[in-house]
Amino acid sequence: MLRLYHFLLCPFSRQVRIVLKEKAIPFELAVENYWERRPEFASLNPAMEVPVLVGDSLVLADTTAILEYLEETSDNNMFLPSSPLERAEIRRLVGWFNNKFYQEVTRYILAERVIRYFTRIGEPNSDSIRAAKANIYYHLDYIAFLTRQRKWLAGEQLSLADIAAASQLSVLDYLGDVPWEYNPAVKEWYALIKSRPSFRPLLSDRISGFVPSQHYTDLDF
Amino acid sequence: MLRLYHFLLCPFSRQVRIVLKEKAIPFELAVENYWERRPEFASLNPAMEVPVLVGDSLVLADTTAILEYLEETSDNNMFLPSSPLERAEIRRLVGWFNNKFYQEVTRYILAERVIRYFTRIGEPNSDSIRAAKANIYYHLDYIAFLTRQRKWLAGEQLSLADIAAASQLSVLDYLGDVPWEYNPAVKEWYALIKSRPSFRPLLSDRISGFVPSQHYTDLDF
Repeated sequence: MLRLYHFLLCPFSRQVRIVLKEKAIPFELAVENYWERRPEFASLNPAMEVPVLVGDSLVLADTTAILEYLEETSDNNMFLPSSPLERAEIRRLVGWFNNKFYQEVTRYILAERVIRYFTRIGEPNSDSIRAAKANIYYHLDYIAFLTRQRKWLAGEQLSLADIAAASQLSVLDYLGDVPWEYNPAVKEWYALIKSRPSFRPLLSDRISGFVPSQHYTDLDF
Repeated sequence: MLRLYHFLLCPFSRQVRIVLKEKAIPFELAVENYWERRPEFASLNPAMEVPVLVGDSLVLADTTAILEYLEETSDNNMFLPSSPLERAEIRRLVGWFNNKFYQEVTRYILAERVIRYFTRIGEPNSDSIRAAKANIYYHLDYIAFLTRQRKWLAGEQLSLADIAAASQLSVLDYLGDVPWEYNPAVKEWYALIKSRPSFRPLLSDRISGFVPSQHYTDLDF
């Protein structure tokens, strides 16, 4: 069986979990506290990052590499359509959420609130947290802009773009850091993804030291 | 004809330039000082980043999206082979250089030395530059490690992995920030890419305010 090395509040691990579930590919989870830099984990992924997907003759690292591999080797529930132009639009938005949104929002919150808690190094930098909380509005506006023109973020079908965006948001939502009241259109779009069976396992995640926000599991938040 | 919006010292723009040349796809270049945030450029790419590739009925943004599109729509000089496992390894390394290497090395040097010069905001942060210069050794070690096992970084063929790595290094090389004497294996691998006709236009790049390092154009450096 496939084994996914992951971290519960890692937005990238969550994307792979959702896609594996959507494609009905069986897998088991192995929690990896990657900041501990286990030598055995380094031999799987010298970048020392989760997610890593391991099978009998398979070691896949890097979220994009894993997600593209799963699209190329499965034939059900595709999240990249066949048209190169549509694929380019999906990948542009995956890049937006996994690079821009992550670098401007998720990374700060995770580093300051979560990873610092586990590594016990220093005090949270409130400037970073404040910056992240200010930056999120612009991204929520962009999601709202996209949903005004399209059913899903990249077009008429659910795609890797929605899964990337929702995964970033879901981590922040666990921590209570998404101002859902700001934009009803974003909330509506997120509620659609959140209610999918593939999302359910994420909603039962509990990480020691962090109680999820009150509405985290609520499908009708 | 295709038009590529780019910035001369942008490692991502360079990757697209190399691939277009390798595939013999005609294109013209348009310099975009993306930090000026031109509204017309925002309408092409709301992320306000280069590269952006524009054609008659085509606006492509995000380096990965552009490079994957070019692979999917051309049939010569492929930099992603057909095997999903080989593709995954190439994409893992593209992620390494375009995310990890970029975030740990190129981004600091560019932000502190180049973008700050053009925007005239503040003084270069010498801590950031020092961190980048320290971080590069680990990445050179990793390139050397890969070249000991393989002809090119991801296998026996030149791939997007080599183009990503060489593009990041080429920007730093222009600025004189690659310690080539540190690892002869890395220098040998880089010399192979540097001598390709597709790399030649990059070597004639000149950016006002920055004189390239002495060996920048030298194929036998």
